[in-house]
Amino acid sequence: VFDFVDGGSFDEITTRRNRQAFEDMELRPHVLAGLADVDVSTSVLGQPLAIPVMASPTGLTGLVHPEGEAGVARGLHAAGSIYVLSASASYSLEEVASGAPGPNWFQLYMWRDRGFVAELLQRAQASGYRALVITVDVPMAGSRERDIRNGFSVPPRVTAKALAQGLTHPRWSTGFLRTPHMTFGNTAGRPVPEGTGLTPTEYVNSLFDPTVGWDDVERIRGLWNGPLVIKGIMRADDAVRAVRAGADAVIVSNHGGRQLDTAWASVSALPSVVEAVGQQTEVYLDSGVRRGTDVLKALALGANACLVGRPPVYGLAAGGTAGVARVMEILAKELRVAMTLSGCASVADITGDLLVAEQMTELMSRQQ
Amino acid sequence: VFDFVDGGSFDEITTRRNRQAFEDMELRPHVLAGLADVDVSTSVLGQPLAIPVMASPTGLTGLVHPEGEAGVARGLHAAGSIYVLSASASYSLEEVASGAPGPNWFQLYMWRDRGFVAELLQRAQASGYRALVITVDVPMAGSRERDIRNGFSVPPRVTAKALAQGLTHPRWSTGFLRTPHMTFGNTAGRPVPEGTGLTPTEYVNSLFDPTVGWDDVERIRGLWNGPLVIKGIMRADDAVRAVRAGADAVIVSNHGGRQLDTAWASVSALPSVVEAVGQQTEVYLDSGVRRGTDVLKALALGANACLVGRPPVYGLAAGGTAGVARVMEILAKELRVAMTLSGCASVADITGDLLVAEQMTELMSRQQ
Amino acid sequence: VFDFVDGGSFDEITTRRNRQAFEDMELRPHVLAGLADVDVSTSVLGQPLAIPVMASPTGLTGLVHPEGEAGVARGLHAAGSIYVLSASASYSLEEVASGAPGPNWFQLYMWRDRGFVAELLQRAQASGYRALVITVDVPMAGSRERDIRNGFSVPPRVTAKALAQGLTHPRWSTGFLRTPHMTFGNTAGRPVPEGTGLTPTEYVNSLFDPTVGWDDVERIRGLWNGPLVIKGIMRADDAVRAVRAGADAVIVSNHGGRQLDTAWASVSALPSVVEAVGQQTEVYLDSGVRRGTDVLKALALGANACLVGRPPVYGLAAGGTAGVARVMEILAKELRVAMTLSGCASVADITGDLLVAEQMTELMSRQQ
Amino acid sequence: VFDFVDGGSFDEITTRRNRQAFEDMELRPHVLAGLADVDVSTSVLGQPLAIPVMASPTGLTGLVHPEGEAGVARGLHAAGSIYVLSASASYSLEEVASGAPGPNWFQLYMWRDRGFVAELLQRAQASGYRALVITVDVPMAGSRERDIRNGFSVPPRVTAKALAQGLTHPRWSTGFLRTPHMTFGNTAGRPVPEGTGLTPTEYVNSLFDPTVGWDDVERIRGLWNGPLVIKGIMRADDAVRAVRAGADAVIVSNHGGRQLDTAWASVSALPSVVEAVGQQTEVYLDSGVRRGTDVLKALALGANACLVGRPPVYGLAAGGTAGVARVMEILAKELRVAMTLSGCASVADITGDLLVAEQMTELMSRQQ
Repeated sequence: VFDFVDGGSFDEITTRRNRQAFEDMELRPHVLAGLADVDVSTSVLGQPLAIPVMASPTGLTGLVHPEGEAGVARGLHAAGSIYVLSASASYSLEEVASGAPGPNWFQLYMWRDRGFVAELLQRAQASGYRALVITVDVPMAGSRERDIRNGFSVPPRVTAKALAQGLTHPRWSTGFLRTPHMTFGNTAGRPVPEGTGLTPTEYVNSLFDPTVGWDDVERIRGLWNGPLVIKGIMRADDAVRAVRAGADAVIVSNHGGRQLDTAWASVSALPSVVEAVGQQTEVYLDSGVRRGTDVLKALALGANACLVGRPPVYGLAAGGTAGVARVMEILAKELRVAMTLSGCASVADITGDLLVAEQMTELMSRQQ
Repeated sequence: VFDFVDGGSFDEITTRRNRQAFEDMELRPHVLAGLADVDVSTSVLGQPLAIPVMASPTGLTGLVHPEGEAGVARGLHAAGSIYVLSASASYSLEEVASGAPGPNWFQLYMWRDRGFVAELLQRAQASGYRALVITVDVPMAGSRERDIRNGFSVPPRVTAKALAQGLTHPRWSTGFLRTPHMTFGNTAGRPVPEGTGLTPTEYVNSLFDPTVGWDDVERIRGLWNGPLVIKGIMRADDAVRAVRAGADAVIVSNHGGRQLDTAWASVSALPSVVEAVGQQTEVYLDSGVRRGTDVLKALALGANACLVGRPPVYGLAAGGTAGVARVMEILAKELRVAMTLSGCASVADITGDLLVAEQMTELMSRQQ
Repeated sequence: VFDFVDGGSFDEITTRRNRQAFEDMELRPHVLAGLADVDVSTSVLGQPLAIPVMASPTGLTGLVHPEGEAGVARGLHAAGSIYVLSASASYSLEEVASGAPGPNWFQLYMWRDRGFVAELLQRAQASGYRALVITVDVPMAGSRERDIRNGFSVPPRVTAKALAQGLTHPRWSTGFLRTPHMTFGNTAGRPVPEGTGLTPTEYVNSLFDPTVGWDDVERIRGLWNGPLVIKGIMRADDAVRAVRAGADAVIVSNHGGRQLDTAWASVSALPSVVEAVGQQTEVYLDSGVRRGTDVLKALALGANACLVGRPPVYGLAAGGTAGVARVMEILAKELRVAMTLSGCASVADITGDLLVAEQMTELMSRQQ
Repeated sequence: VFDFVDGGSFDEITTRRNRQAFEDMELRPHVLAGLADVDVSTSVLGQPLAIPVMASPTGLTGLVHPEGEAGVARGLHAAGSIYVLSASASYSLEEVASGAPGPNWFQLYMWRDRGFVAELLQRAQASGYRALVITVDVPMAGSRERDIRNGFSVPPRVTAKALAQGLTHPRWSTGFLRTPHMTFGNTAGRPVPEGTGLTPTEYVNSLFDPTVGWDDVERIRGLWNGPLVIKGIMRADDAVRAVRAGADAVIVSNHGGRQLDTAWASVSALPSVVEAVGQQTEVYLDSGVRRGTDVLKALALGANACLVGRPPVYGLAAGGTAGVARVMEILAKELRVAMTLSGCASVADITGDLLVAEQMTELMSRQQ
């Protein structure tokens, strides 16, 4: 289960690159900015955020803790932020919406069964989800070789190794066995592929539809009454198309390095997307965000907010709702420190001036 | 035997560089391309390929498995691709041709004995080999220091270390002892150097002829009735000469890092060769190809197809013909994933636009 | 205690970067310069230095050795250099001034209690401190994660781990227990936060004031009768402001990587600061200086002198006053070797010509 | 003793950089050059070399083997090359000259005792040394920290560690104890510093003279009747001065990274020196040469020949004269392989065209 959460696809080069790109960016801090108070709040699509970091959709989150996505949602709301519930969640969208006090967005995959997709949209709208996020970088699944080596499947198969590890982590195992959601919550009783014990990759490929195109986005745009966000943009030209297809915001993301391995870091792609569509629409940055300085850098490059995928899941695994809230609290604190030490009183003060000029130039020269 | 297959020459810097160059290239994937189907097939010299990856010639392949080159050929044909049989194969070209259901090409070294070379060409033509590949980067052998340290020789000498390793791998050893082809199949009874127990390097140097030049290629061009491919080109000017000498295609290759150590990666040399001769002739890329994204990148830089050397040999060692077929199947699957996740429906869609612009610029600036 | 001295903030990327930047700079030495004698002396703000290296302020230095800051001061004076006493020292400024034979400077933090700050200035002036150094890069503390993991606090708490380590280092522990200064010397009986056992970070944040700005510097300029130095400048524009606010010198420093992690190396920031204010004021370089060649490089880039933070503290820990003097002696000797081997008879001979041209160009291109 | 030979100064950054610079240079090999024969011979200062690699002067070579410098000289002559005898040799210049069948050059340090220097020149001339090499990069010694840690001194002191290592290497120890030359052969009975047990660094500094300048070179030029070579040039301007002072050749060298640490690699400095004085004088490259491809690269950048320091000493340690000859034989063989695989029939064919263009451009841009 740890490897399912932690791993990337193939050689995990993009997963490492996402981190390296952030670590290689050098900050040039301001001093003596006279900061009466540092305000880390912002807003996305008109909705307030106490911290410019939302939680990315993650599938099968119930595997790491019985609270599953409901716990992540509660943790995000405790931090004053928004949770993007995955269509592949362990819990159904109704369960998550009813148990959480704050705003959620709903994430949708482009599944083969378009009738079911339309139905999901109606359910999400009925449950009060504030925005729709369409993930477009999964026409099929990147191969997660850790899962293959581990014999990881959905629902989990009991292997000798898994049994041994389970017995040596009794507290986790007890929680795991109490979980009623070892499979997908939203698609229960739905077009689940024949046979159990598929790898997540096989499962995804059985459901997902590589034939979807920009016209399908336009179609969904017509079905959804509210803001539309496209997640998985890694190029300026695709960002322009997303806006043309009706997106209110785009999320620059390479799926945490879990799809096309050796893709460039999403933060490397960010400046070109901001330059292309930043005047017309909001741009968020996902993949590799772990530290307050990462958020600072993404905002300095023009992002309106960030999303984190694995960190809240680790928080959930460690402490349920409280663990998620703690992760978000640490991020908020780190961002506050980073802004204070850089001389930024509010997110509006965070500009490209904080970055080394040569690196900005190089980032822009890497775009088409 | 493993070190003979896996090793490079001297410090193995070029062997590592071949991989590093691929890993350092960053992809900029397209999304929502509306891929009805992803077609990985292509053609080389008018011959269809189910996957744009052929198998490079490898010598003494019988050392790793009794099926030897015949097994590799069958595995490639099972995958719908072409095998390039080495003149230094364990099996004779007739044996490989008769036991394999698909098309093969024949690879030739520029040996001292020109009469024997002419005879080999006639035999290859008689056995139906569809194209002739002349390897031009072995005027003499690069020193494989692993072989020296291991006391590796042709035919193998039984050392204490080899005996110990053999006894601890009984299954492999049994197969090895059943192999009738521990030496060269095509040159049986031919100008084999005096004395047994030569290292592969000594063997090569005793047979090979550093005096061969472009005029020899023209001479062979006259002897061979079919397409001619030159393997081992690492510069644009040499590519131009190859075309002038009558080549129908060139293979950019540094022999998998087994010849001139510290040579640049073959994928680094590729763009200059494509620019120089890509309009007139086909260009293939060999050396370092291990992943589907590597194939995608080579094609994005203008290659018509790739060749893999060590991977099918590892497949053969692990599972004979089936192992080779499995290796090719994995490559095909990975290429299909890479194309799907990049938004390419066919190999024609794979263009330099998928690469980071700065890296393209840098690659071109490295050429003369 | 070792981790408190040695550590940086967060991932310690800037701490490592400070060293890497020095190591990556390549020297182009002159030969046969006919050096009758190599003179490493210089002066700062009109005060002579036997070696162009002073000691940075370090807090709570009494933790590593009973002599504390008084020992560091004596070691620096033995080496003919100047000690900058920290306002967060274990010893009071009067104790350090009375026990040391040479010149000291006094370092000040921008604390919440401005009355106390004014009082400190009077005490420092009365005790003969020759210059005032205002540290401006600590509006709040960077998180030192080693301290958090170690449960390090002020005053120290006895943990099981600390007890075990103390018992295995009996000589150090005996000295430690004899030390009367396990807390802050200058602030004794002053606005110490409620409760003991704060981490250094919590302690700093309880006292420090993020609202201070350039006007506060001007205010202190009015209170201090002597040279004023601003420490913690990392940008050319802030250096210009510092000079405008009345600074007689600036110290380019990122606090040894202990504040904003992923900030650029201070030696990377140095050339832009020298270019901006080097004609009007003196510029010193702090953070990462460990070798004689580091001093040579800083001076080649235009610094008037360097400061070292951790090295004298390590010297103190190892041998008290004599250990500090030995550290400074080694640095002087290394600088003498570096200058002799580069062909520089005096610090005036150390110019940018000693550095690889391309690296100079790149350093300048990284500035705004 | 191993560390004395193998080590560099301070952090050994330049020692590593010398190797890294060679390894990072990428070759672009030619194929089908029609090489009737590959001729690795050349000449330096009108003297023939069977291989363009001479042996650098190394001090105290008797420490590694009883044959000492006499063995290195004989090994070099067996290989058809020239030995540069160090003034700090274990054996006297007369002993080396009488026992060796081929040509030697004599290396001189700029010592304090100028009368003794003049006497040495007369002795060298009388013994038939063909050229004089003045080493100019040792106005004083770089600190070899391995020697300090090992308590290494001249003559050797028996430490417990040395005794233990000696007892576990009985064959080496027996040879070592038979050696009559544990100290300097040329300076026997001469101005040896008071007291024994100096570290090599202390010894050097007691004898060497940092006040020597270009005028001293001119003075020695007048005393020496034969070709004059200046060793230790790392900049174009110093190369120009060397030629003005009467040098017939210059050796680009950073003393194998044993003097100014963090100096750039000597092969990085080579192109600028060649550009500055290559038309008027010969240029040799020392420091970091280990492989045949290194020699090829140095010649491609314009060097007339290379020198190797540590390799023959390792050969001597392993097998006396025969070991040295074997080292040179391996280098000659590797160079022959490198030239054959690059398409070079003779050293005249080795040009900058073999290197990646971008790297050539970058190398030149690093010069002043």
